[in-house]
Amino acid sequence: MAKIAVLGYGTVGSGVVEVINSNNKVIGKNAGENIEVKYVLDLRDFPDDPVQNIITHDFNDIINDDEIEVVVEVMGGTSPAFEFVKASLEKGKSVCTSNKALVAKHGSELLRIAEENKVNFLFEASVGGGIPILRPLNNCITCEVIEEITGILNGTTNYMLTKMTAEGLEYADVLKDAQEKGYAERNPAADVEGHDTCRKIAILSSIVTGREVNFEEIYTEGITKVSKTDIDYVKKMGKAIKLLATAKFDGGKMWARVSPVIIEPSHPLGNVSDVYNGILVKGNCLGDVMFYGMGAGKLPTASAVVSDIVDAVKNKGKNLGFSWSEEKQALTDISTVEVSKFVRVSYSVKAEALNAISQTFGDVDIVEAGIENEFAFITPLLAESVIDKKLSDLGNSEGVGEVLSVIRMY
Amino acid sequence: MAKIAVLGYGTVGSGVVEVINSNNKVIGKNAGENIEVKYVLDLRDFPDDPVQNIITHDFNDIINDDEIEVVVEVMGGTSPAFEFVKASLEKGKSVCTSNKALVAKHGSELLRIAEENKVNFLFEASVGGGIPILRPLNNCITCEVIEEITGILNGTTNYMLTKMTAEGLEYADVLKDAQEKGYAERNPAADVEGHDTCRKIAILSSIVTGREVNFEEIYTEGITKVSKTDIDYVKKMGKAIKLLATAKFDGGKMWARVSPVIIEPSHPLGNVSDVYNGILVKGNCLGDVMFYGMGAGKLPTASAVVSDIVDAVKNKGKNLGFSWSEEKQALTDISTVEVSKFVRVSYSVKAEALNAISQTFGDVDIVEAGIENEFAFITPLLAESVIDKKLSDLGNSEGVGEVLSVIRMY
Repeated sequence: MAKIAVLGYGTVGSGVVEVINSNNKVIGKNAGENIEVKYVLDLRDFPDDPVQNIITHDFNDIINDDEIEVVVEVMGGTSPAFEFVKASLEKGKSVCTSNKALVAKHGSELLRIAEENKVNFLFEASVGGGIPILRPLNNCITCEVIEEITGILNGTTNYMLTKMTAEGLEYADVLKDAQEKGYAERNPAADVEGHDTCRKIAILSSIVTGREVNFEEIYTEGITKVSKTDIDYVKKMGKAIKLLATAKFDGGKMWARVSPVIIEPSHPLGNVSDVYNGILVKGNCLGDVMFYGMGAGKLPTASAVVSDIVDAVKNKGKNLGFSWSEEKQALTDISTVEVSKFVRVSYSVKAEALNAISQTFGDVDIVEAGIENEFAFITPLLAESVIDKKLSDLGNSEGVGEVLSVIRMY
Repeated sequence: MAKIAVLGYGTVGSGVVEVINSNNKVIGKNAGENIEVKYVLDLRDFPDDPVQNIITHDFNDIINDDEIEVVVEVMGGTSPAFEFVKASLEKGKSVCTSNKALVAKHGSELLRIAEENKVNFLFEASVGGGIPILRPLNNCITCEVIEEITGILNGTTNYMLTKMTAEGLEYADVLKDAQEKGYAERNPAADVEGHDTCRKIAILSSIVTGREVNFEEIYTEGITKVSKTDIDYVKKMGKAIKLLATAKFDGGKMWARVSPVIIEPSHPLGNVSDVYNGILVKGNCLGDVMFYGMGAGKLPTASAVVSDIVDAVKNKGKNLGFSWSEEKQALTDISTVEVSKFVRVSYSVKAEALNAISQTFGDVDIVEAGIENEFAFITPLLAESVIDKKLSDLGNSEGVGEVLSVIRMY
């Protein structure tokens, strides 16, 4: 019987307890022994929940109990999560967490401490919720040179973009709906500004490169500027819009970017809708593989956490070596990366505007969505900085009003 | 340096040699030591290929060489593959194979022999080509009660159905095209009759149940009867048609089925096109996860084989316990399973035919594809045997001509 402690009895924490209780037979079989939740740490009491019998308000009860083999950190935030996790690892307890903020900020250090103490720091649930992605990267795709990872890594924004597209709604309206449904927080910045997605692609990139990728250096643009009109154009083109995180790897170099991207609906990621996530991995021999599923939600996320607990218990006393070094990975500036962009412009004189565009970008595809005094076009594939310079010139051209919006194409 | 032998220098065998040579650095890192191909067994010589230096025509060279730790069986067929694999395992060599026919027929016995000899019998490439699916089932989804697996497991037939749909072609024409492109064999039965898919769902089901699922007991219907006209109706309904393998698990019971199925294009499997495969796994807590990628092809398949080699080398002297028993899994007769079916009927008197259908099935959706003297309808959800009995009655009803085709709905 392996005894564990759960830090935090919120959505994921209560899900972890539920998964362990309902699937204890299969868990016991796969872990090699049964698993018992001995403590749940929370500031609150839960008088109507059987969990009350094992609630503690004092982390010392857990850290000083040598019976506890695995600590499950599902509190969120980086403090005191970091201090608790660090102390647990140093005491020879493995830690499993769903906390992407913690992993993105302190992963390198915590992985090193786990290794030094011959325990494991595991965080499958921190990316893609219930979708197995970190373990496949570490354990399954073991003979590939990974060239690219592109993912829809945030269910809230994917739900919002899906709903804006399906129902022709404005951003503000779907945000309100997502908040009412509990998909988006009252302060939605972490989701809608792309910060959550950014931390996840940083974690994936660290696994691929084996070095620390600083999430603060990743170019990150959320969905707050995507309008109903933009989506009208996207639909007109028969395409879809997604908040994509992309990281490309080439030898020791890499770049990464989070932004809304227009994509073919027949692309495997183009069909990932609602709160689902999809993560595409491109290997040099394997080609594209994609992992799809619920990127959030109580039980799917808890399921990923519990699969980590199973691994930790099964590999007692043995660090699994799923790690990256504290060496910093340099990121190539994305302004040098080639991309094609969808550009909406207003005009005073259409013929002059069309002429200015063809002078600036050559022969491009023009998209009309039946909106007065504006149209859109697709730039050729050029370095971001070149496109941006050309767009700034274009804004000053005869007959052109202003550049109304710019969205990358996949 | 781990030394291995490759049995068979066909498409997959030469791919294995290529992946090991081109990705040797990452492979060495993940396996813990470098991997060298010491022998390739083939009846042929390859005078213009560097592989000629390590070609042997005699399996005894391999089996009697104690340096060989891993034998890679990529010959196909069950004999002499079975004898070679068995002898290798008994000699304490791990075996990695892409041979689904071998695994479906002799998997239980070979897994037992591997366990007895503290080596591994691994076959990631036998299902889904390059897609990691067996290892995720064994290693990642470890706290779930698996309720269903449904997959597009054969790239050839998926290519054919995709092409029939996109280009409005007849079965015979796309078969010819697939044969010309090398996707389909001269004798295409293994693919088009569903036998290949059947073996793969049997392997997946054995992993889930932990018992031997006899592929010969799985109801299997290929795509040979799917016509251009059927697909006209499918398109009219805004849906897609796929050759799906489904297995459902409930306690100790299960059923499995391979057949063409009509599915929503927005369903994750509905968007899996061309030679791609997709495998959806439903867990009781996790919900749906899907694994997508190239289900065949030289390098993707070889990549999965090499990931098995990495595992075998990394776990020298230790059976990984990815196994099922030789106990037989009972299959529930699918005639008792509820399903909804698409039915095309011809008529002599339309009003009478419609009346007969509503007498037989109640209020159903009628689909017209603008074809003279016929229409289609969708039955309610009923046991297969009940639907079949009702359809036989319907064929004898006043005004009804005959039942032209019947396809299951997802």
